[in-house]
Amino acid sequence: MTINKKTAIAVIGGEQPSSQEAKLAEEVGRKLAKQGAILVCGGLGGVMEAACRGAQSEGGLTIGILPGDSRRAANPYVQIPIVTGIGYARNIVVVKSAQAVIAIGGSYGTLSEISHALQSGIPVIGLNTWSLSRNGQQDNSIILAQNPTEAVDRALNLAAN
Amino acid sequence: MTINKKTAIAVIGGEQPSSQEAKLAEEVGRKLAKQGAILVCGGLGGVMEAACRGAQSEGGLTIGILPGDSRRAANPYVQIPIVTGIGYARNIVVVKSAQAVIAIGGSYGTLSEISHALQSGIPVIGLNTWSLSRNGQQDNSIILAQNPTEAVDRALNLAAN
Amino acid sequence: MTINKKTAIAVIGGEQPSSQEAKLAEEVGRKLAKQGAILVCGGLGGVMEAACRGAQSEGGLTIGILPGDSRRAANPYVQIPIVTGIGYARNIVVVKSAQAVIAIGGSYGTLSEISHALQSGIPVIGLNTWSLSRNGQQDNSIILAQNPTEAVDRALNLAAN
Amino acid sequence: MTINKKTAIAVIGGEQPSSQEAKLAEEVGRKLAKQGAILVCGGLGGVMEAACRGAQSEGGLTIGILPGDSRRAANPYVQIPIVTGIGYARNIVVVKSAQAVIAIGGSYGTLSEISHALQSGIPVIGLNTWSLSRNGQQDNSIILAQNPTEAVDRALNLAAN
Repeated sequence: MTINKKTAIAVIGGEQPSSQEAKLAEEVGRKLAKQGAILVCGGLGGVMEAACRGAQSEGGLTIGILPGDSRRAANPYVQIPIVTGIGYARNIVVVKSAQAVIAIGGSYGTLSEISHALQSGIPVIGLNTWSLSRNGQQDNSIILAQNPTEAVDRALNLAAN
Repeated sequence: MTINKKTAIAVIGGEQPSSQEAKLAEEVGRKLAKQGAILVCGGLGGVMEAACRGAQSEGGLTIGILPGDSRRAANPYVQIPIVTGIGYARNIVVVKSAQAVIAIGGSYGTLSEISHALQSGIPVIGLNTWSLSRNGQQDNSIILAQNPTEAVDRALNLAAN
Repeated sequence: MTINKKTAIAVIGGEQPSSQEAKLAEEVGRKLAKQGAILVCGGLGGVMEAACRGAQSEGGLTIGILPGDSRRAANPYVQIPIVTGIGYARNIVVVKSAQAVIAIGGSYGTLSEISHALQSGIPVIGLNTWSLSRNGQQDNSIILAQNPTEAVDRALNLAAN
Repeated sequence: MTINKKTAIAVIGGEQPSSQEAKLAEEVGRKLAKQGAILVCGGLGGVMEAACRGAQSEGGLTIGILPGDSRRAANPYVQIPIVTGIGYARNIVVVKSAQAVIAIGGSYGTLSEISHALQSGIPVIGLNTWSLSRNGQQDNSIILAQNPTEAVDRALNLAAN
C-alpha cells in the first residue's frame, strides 16, 4: 500500500451521537476508505469512533488528532494517534489537516470545527448537523447532503479542487 | 488603581464591521469600563478596536490576545498585548480568559469563538450576530440583547455567577 | 495609573524552587514593579508566585498565562489571569508576550521557555539556571546575571531595543 | 500493509543541517522504516526531509506535523501532512505524538522539542546535538548515541516500555 499524500477528509461530530448518527458516520468511514481517502478525526468516541470503525473495516487509514496528553485515549480504530496536548484548540488541527470536512450531528465542539473550516476556506458537508444564520439571513456555507454516499462524493469532489 | 482579579468580559466580532456594529462595539467598551470590568479581545481591528477605543476613553483596561508573532499588530487601544503565535487557535484563549462574552456581528472566526465559549460553559450575549439551529431545532444558547447597555448588564450579571 | 503598552518582562522558573530561588524571584518581581514594568509569568506557584508577590508588594501589574481551563488555578498574586487551555504549549505564549525574559532556576518546562524565547529572538537573562552547549561548543545566548538588580537592569535595557 | 498503532518515533533537527547531520538523519529514517516504525517529524526541510527521504526509500510511513496553514509546505517525502496552524507550538505536538525522540544537531527549535519531550517523560536520544547543565551540574537526560543504528535501537527499546 503506497500512501502518497492521499486525499484527507475529516469526519467531525459528537461523542454522544444518536444511533442514526453513528450509523451515518460508520457508513461515511466505509465509503471514504473504499475511495482510497485518509480519514482524519478527533480520535475519541461517538461519531469519531464509528467513522474509524467503518474505515478500518474497508482497510482504510485512520488518523486521530487527540486533545489530551495520551495516545491511549484514542478509540481502538485509530491507527495513527496524533497527541496534541492542546485541548480543544486541537479542533482547528483536525479541520486544517483535511481537504474537506463532513459534519454529522454534533454539539458546540463540532460547531467550532465547522467555523474554523469555513474561516480557512475548507469545504464543509453536513449530514443532520448545524444550520446557521447571521443577522437574520440564512448562511448556506454548509453544503447539505442527504446520505453518506452523497456526502463522500461531494467531499472528494471539493477536495480535488 | 487596584486591579485585583476584576471581572473580565470578552468582546468578539469581525475586522470589517458595519458602521452600526462599530458603534455598538465602542459603546459596549465604554460601558464595560464604566462598570470597572476588564475588556478582553482578539487585539486586532474592527469590532476589537472600536471596543478598546470605547473602554480606553473611560479609563478601562484593555487586553488584546493576538494570533501572530508581534505585539505591533495590536490596535492602538490595546494596553496589554498577549502575543500567542498560535494563529486562530488564539480564539479559544480569548473566550476562556473571560467570564462572559459579548458577540457583535462577526463572521466565521466570531462563530468559532461563540462555539468555544458555549462548549466551555461561558455565557454568550449577542448583538446582531449569529443564530443557530441544530437538526432543524432552534438553539437559544446565545442570549440576545437589544442594545449595549443590556448586553453589558447581562454579561456582568452572568459573570458574577 | 495609566497602563499604556508598558514594557512587559517574563519571569520563568519552576514550581518547586529552592528557597534561594524563591527569594531571587520575589526580589526580581519587586524591582520590575518599581521600574514600572508589567510582569508576565505562567501564573502558577513556585518562582511564578514569588515573582508576582514581589511585584504586587510594589504595586506592579501581574499577568499569569495559565495552561489549564480555570482562572482559579492562578496564584493569589496574579491580577490578570489569561486562561489558555492549551497545556504546556502556553509556554510559548509566556515568552512571546514579553520583550525580555528572566529565567530563575527551573526544570525542563523552563528550558522549553528559554528555547522558544531564543528561537524568537527574545533576550534571556539567567539567574542560577540552565547552561547550554551544542556539539561540544558552549552556547552563550543566555545572558548571566549575578543578582536580581543586574537581571532586571539587563532585561529592561534589552527590552528597550 | 496493516498499520495498527505501530510504534512512532520522532526525528527532530534543524532546517540547515551540516552534510554529516543530513546523512545521519537519512540513515535514521531508513533504519526506522526497516524496523517497521512510523516516522514523525516537523514536516519541513533539512533533517526532517532527510529522515523522511530515508524512511520512504525503505517503504516506511512518514508524518509531518507542520507549523503553518498549508499542506503544501511539507517536504516531498511526507506522506501524511498534519496542518496545525499553531506555529512553533507545533513542536510540542511533534514530540507528544512519538514514543521516543531522536535529536540530530539542531538549533533552539530542536532544543524546545527536547525540553518538551523530557518534561513529558518521553525519552530523547541524541546524535551530535545539545548537551545541558543546570546550575553547573551536568544533566544526562539526553541519551547519547554514537551512530544511527544505536540511536534507532535505543529509541525502539525505550518506546517499547
